Amino acid sequence: MSERAIGIFDSGVGGLTVFKEIRRQLPDEELLYLGDTARVPYGTKSPRTVVRYALEAASFLVEQGVKLLVVACNTASSVALPALEERFSLPVVGVIAPGASRAAAVTRQLRVGVIGTEGTVKSGAYTRAIQGFNPAISVVSAPCPLFVPLAEEGWVGHPVTRLTAREYLTPLLTQGIDTLVLGCTHYPLLKETLREVAGSGVTLVDSAEETARCVSELLVAHNLVRRTAPPSPRFFVTDVPDRFERVGGAFLGESLNGVEQVVLDGESSVGTAV
Amino acid sequence: MSERAIGIFDSGVGGLTVFKEIRRQLPDEELLYLGDTARVPYGTKSPRTVVRYALEAASFLVEQGVKLLVVACNTASSVALPALEERFSLPVVGVIAPGASRAAAVTRQLRVGVIGTEGTVKSGAYTRAIQGFNPAISVVSAPCPLFVPLAEEGWVGHPVTRLTAREYLTPLLTQGIDTLVLGCTHYPLLKETLREVAGSGVTLVDSAEETARCVSELLVAHNLVRRTAPPSPRFFVTDVPDRFERVGGAFLGESLNGVEQVVLDGESSVGTAV
Repeated sequence: MSERAIGIFDSGVGGLTVFKEIRRQLPDEELLYLGDTARVPYGTKSPRTVVRYALEAASFLVEQGVKLLVVACNTASSVALPALEERFSLPVVGVIAPGASRAAAVTRQLRVGVIGTEGTVKSGAYTRAIQGFNPAISVVSAPCPLFVPLAEEGWVGHPVTRLTAREYLTPLLTQGIDTLVLGCTHYPLLKETLREVAGSGVTLVDSAEETARCVSELLVAHNLVRRTAPPSPRFFVTDVPDRFERVGGAFLGESLNGVEQVVLDGESSVGTAV
Repeated sequence: MSERAIGIFDSGVGGLTVFKEIRRQLPDEELLYLGDTARVPYGTKSPRTVVRYALEAASFLVEQGVKLLVVACNTASSVALPALEERFSLPVVGVIAPGASRAAAVTRQLRVGVIGTEGTVKSGAYTRAIQGFNPAISVVSAPCPLFVPLAEEGWVGHPVTRLTAREYLTPLLTQGIDTLVLGCTHYPLLKETLREVAGSGVTLVDSAEETARCVSELLVAHNLVRRTAPPSPRFFVTDVPDRFERVGGAFLGESLNGVEQVVLDGESSVGTAV
């Protein structure tokens, strides 16, 4: 069992920041990544639909024999974890609890800011999770819908990104946050700009880093740490791979070839006729 | 037949700029609008998939008894018109030919710039269409992926939008274009900023305006001009209507209520479980 792969899924390329952190922290694990690119984005879909998509994505990875499942998608993490845990008998890690736990641990003034997509912020998932760790923490959040396209455009450190970050973060900063949760898997790519705009008084919490740490702890707890050299990671997508290879390659900082297109159960009438 | 509605479809809210222009130019026509919000965006999907989506969307509108079909989506216009014309026996208008025709007519230096989504630019549909009208025209194009989220964010006239426009348009302007086609249904919302950045020497061609003009001509040619007062427009979407109502309302500059959620044939296993 310990020699099996870790399965990571997201609606698209964003989860690659989580993939990258897991690979950095756990270089001896085999990783499978599934991006449901035919149905991205999940953030605008109804919760019931997202649960169904997540179950289909997870089924695919479970069929590949994974030992642990990482939901590297904020939307799916906020609505689908209970359904996934009920359906599959393997450890499931989302991206929200790890970041929330860390934020609750590091805030000194008990004022935490959360930035994410519109869907994530509206769901209130981070606020609930952070206050679940410490109800005394006040959480202020802001949707930053332009950060995803800016990250995908590769405008990291670009004046437009800096100006946009100032616009989005100023209301949070004036409310005196001392901790800022990057509540979207794309945002670690903009970390340097966000750090610069937020200033040195604000601790940045990178959900990808915390999720990888959580995976590491779970592997130990469940006695699932791999003991043999891992094969190369494999990447699966549900739509034509071109864009995923290009944008994802930029996310990982290396070329991404051999991405495999697959059809998920229940998804046969969507997106992937090739 | 002339008393029937005009059916307009798009992958999401963008086509509302076309809806708005048609309503402005043809206030006495009844309009039905369908946004396939459960499967937006089309631009990253394979052509075969987009053709299937377009046929499903068109079938829905044809079942509602429309007399003319407007494909208010650049991606669908560039790949699905032949299939739609073959399947349905009613006039079909896309958004590419009208803008291309206008650009070919107004350029004096025979240098036309085209801006659009990555998918539209990569398809080369505008270049082919413009050069189909006049092969001597040289067409330079640039993908502007940030314009859609900027328009949806409502950052019209915002410094970030101006800075982004300068970044995207400068390479086209240095190549001496005298005409710029707004090859994406979202872009008319940013027209003032684009006009300012492009300068007075460049004629802007608004595809939505030209498409509405083309619809008007077709109604006359096919003897389909409505003679009685029209009922209110109806709006249909394939995912939960909230976001469409909010962003679409801002697009139209009026509140958008009573948007109806529908399930398209072939789409039953996607996106719309409510």
